[in-house]
Amino acid sequence: MISKDPVANLQALVRCPSVTPAEGGALTALSVMLAPLGFKVERMTATEEGTPDIENLYARIGTAGPHLMFAGHTDVVPVGDEKAWTHPPFSGEIADGILYGRGAVDMKGGIACFVAATARYIEKHGEFPGSVSYLITGDEEGPAVNGTIKLLEWAAARGERWDACLVGEPTNPERLGDMIKIGRRGSLSGRITVHGVQGHAAYPHLADNPVRGILQLTAALMDPPFDHGTDEFQPSNLEVTTIDVGNAATNVIPARATASFNIRFNDTWSAETLQAEIIRRLDAAAAEGSLRPGRNPVRYDIAWSERPSHVFLTRNNGLIAALSGAIQTVTGREPKLSTTGGTSDARFIKDYCPVVEFGLVGQTMHMVDERVPVQELEELTRIYFTFLEQWFGNAGV
Amino acid sequence: MISKDPVANLQALVRCPSVTPAEGGALTALSVMLAPLGFKVERMTATEEGTPDIENLYARIGTAGPHLMFAGHTDVVPVGDEKAWTHPPFSGEIADGILYGRGAVDMKGGIACFVAATARYIEKHGEFPGSVSYLITGDEEGPAVNGTIKLLEWAAARGERWDACLVGEPTNPERLGDMIKIGRRGSLSGRITVHGVQGHAAYPHLADNPVRGILQLTAALMDPPFDHGTDEFQPSNLEVTTIDVGNAATNVIPARATASFNIRFNDTWSAETLQAEIIRRLDAAAAEGSLRPGRNPVRYDIAWSERPSHVFLTRNNGLIAALSGAIQTVTGREPKLSTTGGTSDARFIKDYCPVVEFGLVGQTMHMVDERVPVQELEELTRIYFTFLEQWFGNAGV
Ligand SMILES: [Zn+2]
Ligand SMILES: [Zn+2]
Repeated sequence: MISKDPVANLQALVRCPSVTPAEGGALTALSVMLAPLGFKVERMTATEEGTPDIENLYARIGTAGPHLMFAGHTDVVPVGDEKAWTHPPFSGEIADGILYGRGAVDMKGGIACFVAATARYIEKHGEFPGSVSYLITGDEEGPAVNGTIKLLEWAAARGERWDACLVGEPTNPERLGDMIKIGRRGSLSGRITVHGVQGHAAYPHLADNPVRGILQLTAALMDPPFDHGTDEFQPSNLEVTTIDVGNAATNVIPARATASFNIRFNDTWSAETLQAEIIRRLDAAAAEGSLRPGRNPVRYDIAWSERPSHVFLTRNNGLIAALSGAIQTVTGREPKLSTTGGTSDARFIKDYCPVVEFGLVGQTMHMVDERVPVQELEELTRIYFTFLEQWFGNAGV
Repeated sequence: MISKDPVANLQALVRCPSVTPAEGGALTALSVMLAPLGFKVERMTATEEGTPDIENLYARIGTAGPHLMFAGHTDVVPVGDEKAWTHPPFSGEIADGILYGRGAVDMKGGIACFVAATARYIEKHGEFPGSVSYLITGDEEGPAVNGTIKLLEWAAARGERWDACLVGEPTNPERLGDMIKIGRRGSLSGRITVHGVQGHAAYPHLADNPVRGILQLTAALMDPPFDHGTDEFQPSNLEVTTIDVGNAATNVIPARATASFNIRFNDTWSAETLQAEIIRRLDAAAAEGSLRPGRNPVRYDIAWSERPSHVFLTRNNGLIAALSGAIQTVTGREPKLSTTGGTSDARFIKDYCPVVEFGLVGQTMHMVDERVPVQELEELTRIYFTFLEQWFGNAGV
């Protein structure tokens, strides 16, 4: 049966130069794999003023439930220093059992394996006792405005409903089977501006140095800790990512100081309760006035990032057990159920159905010589295949 | 006798557009006033690579001691918004008894009055029982590299020695007679760079955020106070004048953060002991590590401003008494002996002889419509004249 070989699938995908926002032929290559298996493949172009148009793909086989979604992206990050690559980044060349190429692990590799697993499942069982869909975007590595979030809205508006989702991002730190992601911290950014009164450094009583205010406000954000973590999550962590004043004159007290911060937060908070806590801290620090005695409250304003990433945690035991069991069956390893790392498109999917993430080993992602051992592609295909059997309840049939 | 009228003197000086570094004819105009009184007038051009050549003037009458120096500058700051001036900034126009012009108070007015006082003294006493010198630079409002400091070296190398100096800068906050400057705080600037480790905001344990370090180091500079002031000086005061990181990516922990500070310090410190104290504070704060537990010491370096301004305090009671007495005689007010405000060229002169500062009311200096009441010019001339008599010990003769 066609598409059963993850290596051939991956080579076909890697040879499409689909650097965000270019489709590069990758979605077409995927269609060519899925359509012969019986999938109804649709393409959807998402647009938004000020951002490039993005092509996305939605493919479904079956009409009944239960309905499993596989989600991912065919777009890749730029190749970086092309001359530094051992093998051309869009060649998919194999040397000593290792396949090289941009996107090999993040995450054309995951897609290639899931296609092979799907093909093998159909070969063995004839059809799914339910439905399987592919929800694949070309805008995960870019601004993510015209990608998964719009594709979900588009499909849901047409009546699509899902029972569970597996995202094929690389989740393993070192070895295949190390780690499943069952949640992600949220991410919230803001920018504080403190307004002072400009003046001469020799006459500080006539001025009001905003550097003092910005130091107090940022100190209030950094201490005490927002929480001490939960059973599933590490503690929320705030980083002040920049402070800028831009005053080149050493004898001048500046008029204004700004600071930006980013906080990765766990499910102790929602984006909204966290914003309220941050405002509470800033207002309290501002009310104390600047360090100089007899000062007025610090005058500040805050601008929030447009779209906070919401925290999520999947508590669907059936989904987690099916995936974890498949991994143990194939690798003999019990994967860690983790919520660490950055954000992923799973933060959008969690509004529609329970979602977990599992894919290849992430070590070379976004780097020169991104690569994957051919043997790991075969192993991941077997994990995905076993997961399909476990989740659809016909393992061993 | 010529030059006896401070108003005519000032108009002649104001009409020379001597914006730093341009001589603008101002030193020549001064020569034309001094030479007929019997002064030996010399011009000295100072040069230094990377800075504009500056013309300066040194004029002396008499050969014996005691030797009094009058110091000042004929250069002026730019006019700003020329259309906003009620009278053209280089016109010296008088309206309703007020003379308008850039430099009217800072400090062509002081020079004009001292010339008139000198002329009146010579008219009355024939000659000085000693010597009087004018040490006038064209580089006080600029970088001050080719000005007073080089002119002093040049004159001292030729054997010139002085017993006392009066600087004619505007020292009065509101009314003529308010304030003599008998000292100045020193000024020291530095720039701290904290070196961290760049990384992704989602993986802070792999990075080391230098913003944390810069906040700790600057906090250590701001608290506790360096001192609580002395009988003559207000407390030393440090201002952090800028903090800059320049990181535009909210999900990136930056590699480097910088902060600049300026400290105005009293005679509790020398520039050297103060630098040592600052290093001690920074090292102690750095050794504590960043706020995150288990961190290494903060890695930082510091660059000092090239030329700190040294603190000085004049304790020559004869000089202060002569000036203070003259002010009381003419105005009926007892001037405050102050050490407040910014630095002045007196910081260079104090290495050669005791120095005090007294001139016009500073309110309009550096502003549009810089101006002085004609009556104050006459009053300051009488103060300077009385001071000359007091200092040379022939008051009432
Ligand atoms: Zn990815
Ligand atoms: Zn001046």
